[in-house]
Amino acid sequence: MNQFLSIDDVPDPAGLVKEALVIKTDPFAFSHLGKNKTLGLVFLNPSLRTRMSTQRAAQNLGMDVMVLNVDKDGWQLEFEDGAIMNGASQEHIKEAAAVISQYCDIIGIRTFPSLQDREADYNEKILRSFARNATVPVISLESATLHPLQSLADWLTIEEHKTKDMPKVVLTWAPHPKALPQSVPNSFVQWIRKAPVEFVITHPEGYELNSRFTAGVTIEYDQNKALAGADFVYAKNWSSYNEYGKILSQDSSWMVTEEKMALTNQGSFMHCLPVRRNVIVTDQVLDGPNSLIINEAGNRVYAAQAVLKSILENGASGSN
Amino acid sequence: MNQFLSIDDVPDPAGLVKEALVIKTDPFAFSHLGKNKTLGLVFLNPSLRTRMSTQRAAQNLGMDVMVLNVDKDGWQLEFEDGAIMNGASQEHIKEAAAVISQYCDIIGIRTFPSLQDREADYNEKILRSFARNATVPVISLESATLHPLQSLADWLTIEEHKTKDMPKVVLTWAPHPKALPQSVPNSFVQWIRKAPVEFVITHPEGYELNSRFTAGVTIEYDQNKALAGADFVYAKNWSSYNEYGKILSQDSSWMVTEEKMALTNQGSFMHCLPVRRNVIVTDQVLDGPNSLIINEAGNRVYAAQAVLKSILENGASGSN
Amino acid sequence: MNQFLSIDDVPDPAGLVKEALVIKTDPFAFSHLGKNKTLGLVFLNPSLRTRMSTQRAAQNLGMDVMVLNVDKDGWQLEFEDGAIMNGASQEHIKEAAAVISQYCDIIGIRTFPSLQDREADYNEKILRSFARNATVPVISLESATLHPLQSLADWLTIEEHKTKDMPKVVLTWAPHPKALPQSVPNSFVQWIRKAPVEFVITHPEGYELNSRFTAGVTIEYDQNKALAGADFVYAKNWSSYNEYGKILSQDSSWMVTEEKMALTNQGSFMHCLPVRRNVIVTDQVLDGPNSLIINEAGNRVYAAQAVLKSILENGASGSN
Repeated sequence: MNQFLSIDDVPDPAGLVKEALVIKTDPFAFSHLGKNKTLGLVFLNPSLRTRMSTQRAAQNLGMDVMVLNVDKDGWQLEFEDGAIMNGASQEHIKEAAAVISQYCDIIGIRTFPSLQDREADYNEKILRSFARNATVPVISLESATLHPLQSLADWLTIEEHKTKDMPKVVLTWAPHPKALPQSVPNSFVQWIRKAPVEFVITHPEGYELNSRFTAGVTIEYDQNKALAGADFVYAKNWSSYNEYGKILSQDSSWMVTEEKMALTNQGSFMHCLPVRRNVIVTDQVLDGPNSLIINEAGNRVYAAQAVLKSILENGASGSN
Repeated sequence: MNQFLSIDDVPDPAGLVKEALVIKTDPFAFSHLGKNKTLGLVFLNPSLRTRMSTQRAAQNLGMDVMVLNVDKDGWQLEFEDGAIMNGASQEHIKEAAAVISQYCDIIGIRTFPSLQDREADYNEKILRSFARNATVPVISLESATLHPLQSLADWLTIEEHKTKDMPKVVLTWAPHPKALPQSVPNSFVQWIRKAPVEFVITHPEGYELNSRFTAGVTIEYDQNKALAGADFVYAKNWSSYNEYGKILSQDSSWMVTEEKMALTNQGSFMHCLPVRRNVIVTDQVLDGPNSLIINEAGNRVYAAQAVLKSILENGASGSN
Repeated sequence: MNQFLSIDDVPDPAGLVKEALVIKTDPFAFSHLGKNKTLGLVFLNPSLRTRMSTQRAAQNLGMDVMVLNVDKDGWQLEFEDGAIMNGASQEHIKEAAAVISQYCDIIGIRTFPSLQDREADYNEKILRSFARNATVPVISLESATLHPLQSLADWLTIEEHKTKDMPKVVLTWAPHPKALPQSVPNSFVQWIRKAPVEFVITHPEGYELNSRFTAGVTIEYDQNKALAGADFVYAKNWSSYNEYGKILSQDSSWMVTEEKMALTNQGSFMHCLPVRRNVIVTDQVLDGPNSLIINEAGNRVYAAQAVLKSILENGASGSN
């Protein structure tokens, strides 16, 4: 790979999952690959899991890491071409991307959706502009509409814990007090539909995801029916795609409970975290024996390491 | 050791002081111990000395370090069990601790007191909850009521500079414009009373520390009497324990001055820093030849290194 | 060198430029020099380029790096000698400098001008106070009135791209919506007048820089005349020195355009970045084939590396 902005950059997603599983058995086996290489992590939006897991992944490969919190470190970026920059923004993303490329061999960047301008969000305006102006490989640490590192870790987790060849995986919407991005469910659909699973999505009417991702996937509006016989239950809130960025429901009957889990085939519970306890899912499910959330978060390291390894092997090199 | 939350985790405090002194003579002697190990430093409250000294200590041992400023990086944690998280807090400390444990081999965490709810503070609710949910060794970088890394460095400093077998050490309260935690004096009492010293505490009436720590230690309300013949004067402000978190006095006659130091046995001056000049202590004393403050701050490295070394030797291992 | 606060600390500026060019051909050749050494980067003002380039430079030399954002990490420093610190400031710069020296082998610090008190700014009160109280070598990451690492990188860039022995270099003022420091142009003048170039400064009347720096340098108030035959055009805004810190003009006719560049000898365009597009310079010039801005930013690494290498070879050593 020479970049990792979405699954479209991955020639063999299932192969990448296998690679991550191999890395997990001996995380330091490739620590020579990153020698004298620096990963830059650029956050336009804050992050805990993604930052720590990607930093650890890079260090396991022998890389140095530099973190830049653009939002907190007081830099305001301009994203518009042709802008007359006599206002608040101090630096155009063109220079930012090209300059950071001078200091790093690979750059990870986290952007975020406006949740107002659907077209700009779904065109991944910020991420694409950054990647276009960077001169080193760029990886997405979550963008406006996708979160591929999360989905790779999710597939990896399912692969590790499945007890049958063709497990049933259910992505279920769950309530949340805030309007959240669609990046995690979008990516989950993109990746998991390529995995050897039976895949069902369930959500209240009006919460249909972009059909570009879901066309051909079973959507079941009755959560109980969807959960029947599930081996993996992946819960996540998202805001509406059709009424873009809106909260249409906070219906707590969609919360994942022990009663709901009883409908499954002793199904495992997954969530990308952070999770609102007793809003998305009850304490009992989260703290129960079938919760995979911590293992899933741990797998973020090996997902990132598989991606970085592939890029390093492809010959990532900065200006140095 | 398999954790370092307080002196209660240290089987042999005097031995740990000796270990730190040995490390100081050759700080890089054990740089193989931390290879492929990562220390996570989690700050719920900002820090300069603790962060830099602990980071340096870890690097001296060959560890990688990841710093997470939870307060600044925009993550709001929930501490209550059973909370319905539909408000501002985004992640429960249960997940935070367990997830960070996936990315680190040892975690240092700084928490802080409310100075309002004495019981919660003295139960170390946040630190204990984090340590309970972490799956790797946890060290305190100062908690609500204790600061053991500071006290270990303080003892080390006394050990280095004492000129007699049984020096007199005086902990004196000093005025300050803000209500400060009791963590530094509490820990100092816990540690120094185990050292081979004559120990006296002096403070205005009403500033008695928790008797759990001070029972059996000499308390002298007359500062001048307490200072008489002192070899080490350790100044520190704290807010009241009895009228919890309150400022009862800002009496500047408690400020440490050259006149006060003249009562001592050419005593050395100590303070954990940061220090309010000409409020806690005068410029003359701080900048004088008997001030140990910079050496004391430097010893934070070797204190942290002794603790990390002990934990690494005990077999710290993260999920990797 | 044993410090790098300005060009006055550099015995042979042209030699340092040559050294940086050599380093650029093999950036990892000296990675043994920094083994077990730590660079502390202290920011009293935020930074992107300087932080990343200096961090990369240190890592190329095998050093560990610790970054301290004093402004963001919530530490308020006192700069006045003799202050009675019962207000907002928590720590005197005396202790800060001495303590950080305990944890680092070299310290880089970025300070900033008040743009109100010219004498304090031009005395470099904060930088000098920090350096005086530090016990390890200090390098400036930009101070109130100088930015020597930038100028070293600028000279390096000119050296790399010049096509004649004695190129013409023009420093031109350009408009900006905010009152900016004079540090970049001051340093540029100090360094470039020692380079083998024909040097001209152009700016509107009233924007004369401190004559301490410019005495003997050609100043041409007609920008078009100045640009005639230029090989390098270095654009930069600054606020007035005489009417200290004031914006006297926002005259957009000073913006660097293709028409202006047509007056030059196919001149290259330079700027220290960040740059306000279509305010300082047009998109066409910035994105054109003669723009050196990205290469110039990349050279910040080798400039910093030459400085750090020189200090390390001189025997930098912290308390460790």
